[in-house]
Amino acid sequence: MSPNAALIIIGNEILSGRTQDKNAAYIAQKLQERGIRLMEIRVVPDDEAKIIATVNELRARFDYIFTTGGIGPTHDDITATCIAKAFGLAFGHHPQALDILQKHYGDQLTEARARMAMMPLNAKLIPNPVSAAPGFIVENVYVMAGVPKIMQAMFDHVVAGLRTGPALVTRSVFCAIPESVLAPGLSALQDEFADVEIGSYPHFQIGDIGVSIVARGTDAARVETVAQRVFALMQSMGGTPRWE
Amino acid sequence: MSPNAALIIIGNEILSGRTQDKNAAYIAQKLQERGIRLMEIRVVPDDEAKIIATVNELRARFDYIFTTGGIGPTHDDITATCIAKAFGLAFGHHPQALDILQKHYGDQLTEARARMAMMPLNAKLIPNPVSAAPGFIVENVYVMAGVPKIMQAMFDHVVAGLRTGPALVTRSVFCAIPESVLAPGLSALQDEFADVEIGSYPHFQIGDIGVSIVARGTDAARVETVAQRVFALMQSMGGTPRWE
Repeated sequence: MSPNAALIIIGNEILSGRTQDKNAAYIAQKLQERGIRLMEIRVVPDDEAKIIATVNELRARFDYIFTTGGIGPTHDDITATCIAKAFGLAFGHHPQALDILQKHYGDQLTEARARMAMMPLNAKLIPNPVSAAPGFIVENVYVMAGVPKIMQAMFDHVVAGLRTGPALVTRSVFCAIPESVLAPGLSALQDEFADVEIGSYPHFQIGDIGVSIVARGTDAARVETVAQRVFALMQSMGGTPRWE
Repeated sequence: MSPNAALIIIGNEILSGRTQDKNAAYIAQKLQERGIRLMEIRVVPDDEAKIIATVNELRARFDYIFTTGGIGPTHDDITATCIAKAFGLAFGHHPQALDILQKHYGDQLTEARARMAMMPLNAKLIPNPVSAAPGFIVENVYVMAGVPKIMQAMFDHVVAGLRTGPALVTRSVFCAIPESVLAPGLSALQDEFADVEIGSYPHFQIGDIGVSIVARGTDAARVETVAQRVFALMQSMGGTPRWE
């Protein structure tokens, strides 16, 4: 069985449209490479009750929960306290995290900066090679920064320790024909190969009209067979497919 | 009271990392302009039970629900049937939608294409000026295409008919200093101005180290006052702020 995961993106800046999230695609791709299925993404505001409820709902349902955002030094960074409350854990200055910040800031370690060491006291730390202040892990919940560069470093560190599943293999074919022309053939193919997920993604950009068909599964030979059948289907409908 | 909203992004392609979602930021910005608060975004897979449960949970909690994706002609497009099941509505070829497709495709209207007219029979249609196949509305749920160009046309059409709230005004100041230096001052300012949301967004890109502070609220004068106070705070900490 493949392990599964959910991602919680915490931050008003995504919900207001100010910031375009870049973390979801990064995490999604890396999980897929390791055969971990990302089942759901939620974007929630900087609201304590909402964050706690979301964490508690999802951590009970999925193997791994990743959160991004809200662990900095300012008043709107409330993720760490929410995680402590979600688990009912003691919260305060984590000795090891405080030690990291002391080494990094020296006599510049203000109260605001020391706030970044406040988290559940029994949390396991996630190193931050960019700006020192660590992320942390409580049970199956991985709490990371929202700044993409820092998030990526944290995620790359923890992903190596996750349980993996059979790697997902994908094969993609593009053809400059309407997807509706392929629909009956694709539907029959999907019925025949229930273990290979067949996705149909139309393009409507000028100079790029057509459709990408993506076959995805854990059995590389089956995925290849499906992709070759899609390629032939496109040709039989008068198209000139190309591999992507 | 400002109306609120949630967005449901339907599609395996987002969860696999194949496609970077572009619709959320577009919708978020347009809603904010109209004073409608986007409270939550969920990305869910092409899974019937999951889509139905998500729609039913959120439509009971928010004024407006927008969905993107899964209304095309292929086997993996299951949003319309899920919406019908979520509401317990009769599902079939919507006469008006079928008429639109007949006019668009003429004698090229295949069964696969006609499938795009299948939806709750009492749905109100959302025009699609790009590729004809309409989106639709059932009660407070707005069902739109996933292709950004089509989604934007559909959204621009429906947004004009939504109830609006007091417009949200934002003012943003950047300064090349660490956000932790501003943290105590920002926290005091947030306590003083509870009706203005103060967000702190650090930058870590090379050549762009620093922090953006964003003040947001419905009272333009109060937002401006907070922003000016932030500007002065940055100067008092030795920084050279600039308006964004």
